[in-house]
Amino acid sequence: MIIIKGGVASARGFVANGVKAGIKPSGNKDLALLYSEVPCVAAGAFTTNNFEASPVKISKLHIKNKTHQAVIVNSGNANCANGRTGDAAALAMTECVAKNLWLDRREVLVASTGIIGCPLPIDNIKSNAGALINGLSKDGGRLFAETIMTTDTVKKEFAVKVKLRDSVVTIGGACKGVGMIYPVMKTEKHATMLSFIATDAAISKKMLEDALGECIGDSFNMISVDGDMSTNDTCFVLANGMAGNKKITKKGSDYGKFMEGLKFLCVELAKMLASDGEGATKFMEIEVRGAHSVNDAKAAARKISTSNLLKCAIFGEDPNWGRVAAACGAAGVKFDPSRTDIYLGPVKALSNGAIAKGFDKNRARPFLKKPGVKITVDLKSGRYGATAWTCDFSKEYVAINSEYST
Amino acid sequence: MIIIKGGVASARGFVANGVKAGIKPSGNKDLALLYSEVPCVAAGAFTTNNFEASPVKISKLHIKNKTHQAVIVNSGNANCANGRTGDAAALAMTECVAKNLWLDRREVLVASTGIIGCPLPIDNIKSNAGALINGLSKDGGRLFAETIMTTDTVKKEFAVKVKLRDSVVTIGGACKGVGMIYPVMKTEKHATMLSFIATDAAISKKMLEDALGECIGDSFNMISVDGDMSTNDTCFVLANGMAGNKKITKKGSDYGKFMEGLKFLCVELAKMLASDGEGATKFMEIEVRGAHSVNDAKAAARKISTSNLLKCAIFGEDPNWGRVAAACGAAGVKFDPSRTDIYLGPVKALSNGAIAKGFDKNRARPFLKKPGVKITVDLKSGRYGATAWTCDFSKEYVAINSEYST
Repeated sequence: MIIIKGGVASARGFVANGVKAGIKPSGNKDLALLYSEVPCVAAGAFTTNNFEASPVKISKLHIKNKTHQAVIVNSGNANCANGRTGDAAALAMTECVAKNLWLDRREVLVASTGIIGCPLPIDNIKSNAGALINGLSKDGGRLFAETIMTTDTVKKEFAVKVKLRDSVVTIGGACKGVGMIYPVMKTEKHATMLSFIATDAAISKKMLEDALGECIGDSFNMISVDGDMSTNDTCFVLANGMAGNKKITKKGSDYGKFMEGLKFLCVELAKMLASDGEGATKFMEIEVRGAHSVNDAKAAARKISTSNLLKCAIFGEDPNWGRVAAACGAAGVKFDPSRTDIYLGPVKALSNGAIAKGFDKNRARPFLKKPGVKITVDLKSGRYGATAWTCDFSKEYVAINSEYST
Repeated sequence: MIIIKGGVASARGFVANGVKAGIKPSGNKDLALLYSEVPCVAAGAFTTNNFEASPVKISKLHIKNKTHQAVIVNSGNANCANGRTGDAAALAMTECVAKNLWLDRREVLVASTGIIGCPLPIDNIKSNAGALINGLSKDGGRLFAETIMTTDTVKKEFAVKVKLRDSVVTIGGACKGVGMIYPVMKTEKHATMLSFIATDAAISKKMLEDALGECIGDSFNMISVDGDMSTNDTCFVLANGMAGNKKITKKGSDYGKFMEGLKFLCVELAKMLASDGEGATKFMEIEVRGAHSVNDAKAAARKISTSNLLKCAIFGEDPNWGRVAAACGAAGVKFDPSRTDIYLGPVKALSNGAIAKGFDKNRARPFLKKPGVKITVDLKSGRYGATAWTCDFSKEYVAINSEYST
C-alpha cells in the first residue's frame, strides 16, 4: 500500500464538483457532487441517532439498490427535524441529480450537514444542479472536500493505492466534521461527520458492505470531539470496478489487501477529523490494552476520550492522570484497578493502581506540550486492545459553540 | 413539611466541626467531622466507578455495621489510586476518630474529595483529630459544609422538618461537588459529590436504606456538571431516633412523609450542586415526559443534560433547540421523532418532529437570558417523565479545569 496525493475523485472513473448554492449564510460553497462514469456498488453506514435526519432516511432506502452512480451533499443545513417537508426535500435532491444524469433516483445517495431544524432551501439546490453537474471534473475532488466543510478549518482528503494479485486499485476519500462528533454508525446493511470514499476496485456489494462494517468500528466510530452524536453521520463507499481486477467476491487475500487499504484510509480520515476538532489545540490518542475483549477496550478508550475533565487538563498541559483513571473506571468495563497502569506519553504515572515509583510530573509535562498527546492504559486483565482519538477542550470550543446558530 | 434554616447538624443530637489540617495547598479548612451523641442507623450510597477511592472501599465495609456514630471527611485529596497505602490511610481516618470518641472503627464512616493519585497526608489528619473532636458543636454544621468544599463557590446546606403521626422530625444535610459530577450511585445495601444527611427520626436501618435508594435515583443521580463520573461519590444518611417518634419499620404513612422530606432535601441539595457547577453562569432543568418508562425518561433527560453542544448554546443564550433533539435521539431510547415536541421555557420550538408553526427565536431568547433555563421534551410515546439538572458550559469551566492540579 502506498499513500498518494488525492481524494474522493482519485480512483479511475470518478469526477466531482462543489458550487455555491446559497445555503450557507457565509456564501461559501455548499453543494457538492460525486459521480462515477459507470455504475458502482455502494455500502453505507449511518448514525444510530433516533432523531435521524431526512437525508439519512432517504439514503437508507436508496442504499438497498443494486447500483449507484452519484452522491449529492449539501453543507450549511442538516435537513433534520424538518418533518415530511424535510423528507421530500432530501428525495428531491436525489431526483434533480437523477434527472440531469439519466439515472434512477435510487442510484443517487444524499447527505446533509449544518444546522438542525431549519427548512432546506431546496429551490436553491434545484436551480444550481445544472452548474454542479456541468462542472464535474477529475480535479473536482478538492472542491468536493472544500464544499462539505462546516466549522472545519481545513479540508480533509486522503488516498491510497493497493496492489492486488492482478491489478492496482485506488481508494480515495474526503470527510468533514469537527463538532457534534461522536459517531456510532452502523452499516445498514449503517457521525455530523460525513465521509465519502470512492474506489475503482471491482468488488461485490456484499464484500464492500462487510469491509466497510469492519473498518468503521476501528476508525470513525472511535473518534470524539464533544461526545455529541449527530443526527446526520454518514459514510459511503462506492466501488466502480474500473481497475479491472478480478472481482473480490470472497474473503481471500485480495479482500484482505483491499480491507487493509480501506481501513488505513478510514483511520487517517478519522484522525484528521479529531485533529481539527472545534477549538482543538492538541490531538489526543488513547490506547487501552490488556482488556478482556475488544469491546471492553473500545468502551474504555472511548469513555476516556470523552472526559471533559481530561480534555481540559490536556489543554492546560497538566499531567492530571487521575482523570484518566476516573474516566476508565466509569466505562462500565470490568478490570482490576490494582493491576492497572497508566502512561502519559512514555512516562508511567500509575503502576498497579498506585502512583508509579519515581513518577515526576515534570518528566511527563514535555509530552503534553506536543501537538499530539498519547495516553496509554494497560488494564493487564486480558489480551485485547483498542485506540480512540480525540482533541483537547479549549475555551475556543466554548466560544465556537455558544455563537454557532445566531 | 417546612423548610428551616440549617444543615447537617440541625437534627437533635448531632454536632459537627471543620478544621485546617494542611491537606489543601490553599491552607483552607479541609478536615470535617459529623457526630451523633447516640448511636445511629445509617445508609450509604457510593459511586459505581470501577476505580473506587480508598474511603469508598472502607465505607462500603463499615456501612454493613448495625450502628454508626461519626463521619469523617477530608477535602483536598481524593485518596484514590493510592494503592494499599491509600486503603490503610482511609482506615486510619476512621480509627483516629473511633479511638478518641470510644467507638468501634466500624461505627465511623469516611469520605474524601480532591485530587486523585496523591498520597493522603495521614499524619496531618491524625495530629488534627483532637482539635477536630474538641471543637464539635451544634453550630459546627456550617463549618462542616464549608470544610468539605473544593472548587465550590458557596457552601451547600439545607434542612426540613416533617410532621409524622406523633412527632416532628428534622432532616438536615450538607453537600459539595461542582466538578467531576455525573453521579451514578448505588445503595450498597451504595459523585465527587459528597452528601451527608442527618436526621433525628427513629427508623430501622432497612427502611433508611430503602428511603435513600428511592431518593437518590430522582436527585443526586439526575445531576451532571461535566458528565465525568467520580471515583469518590458518596452519600450518607444517619438517623439517631432522638425525635422520639414511633420507629418507622414499614412503608406506612410515616415512611411516606419521611421519604417526602428526604427526597425534597436531596433534590434541593442536588440542584445546589448543579447551580454551582464549575464555571456555571446558568442553571438548567431538563424535563422529559411522555416516555415509555421512567428509565427511558431518565436516560433521555440525563443524555440531554450532558450535551456539551447544548450547554455551550445555553451559555451563549442561543435558542439552538436542534441540539436538544440530537441529544435526545442519542439516548438509546425508543420514541417516535415525528411525534416529539420541544419547548424552550414555555415556547414551543419543535412540534411533531418539525419546527413549530410561528416559532420565533426572538420569543425564546428572553427565557434563555434568565439564570434558570427550563427545557422540556415531550416524546408523546408514553406516560412516564423525569427531570435532570445541569448548568451551562462556559469558557470559565475550561479555565478552571485546565489549571486545577498544578
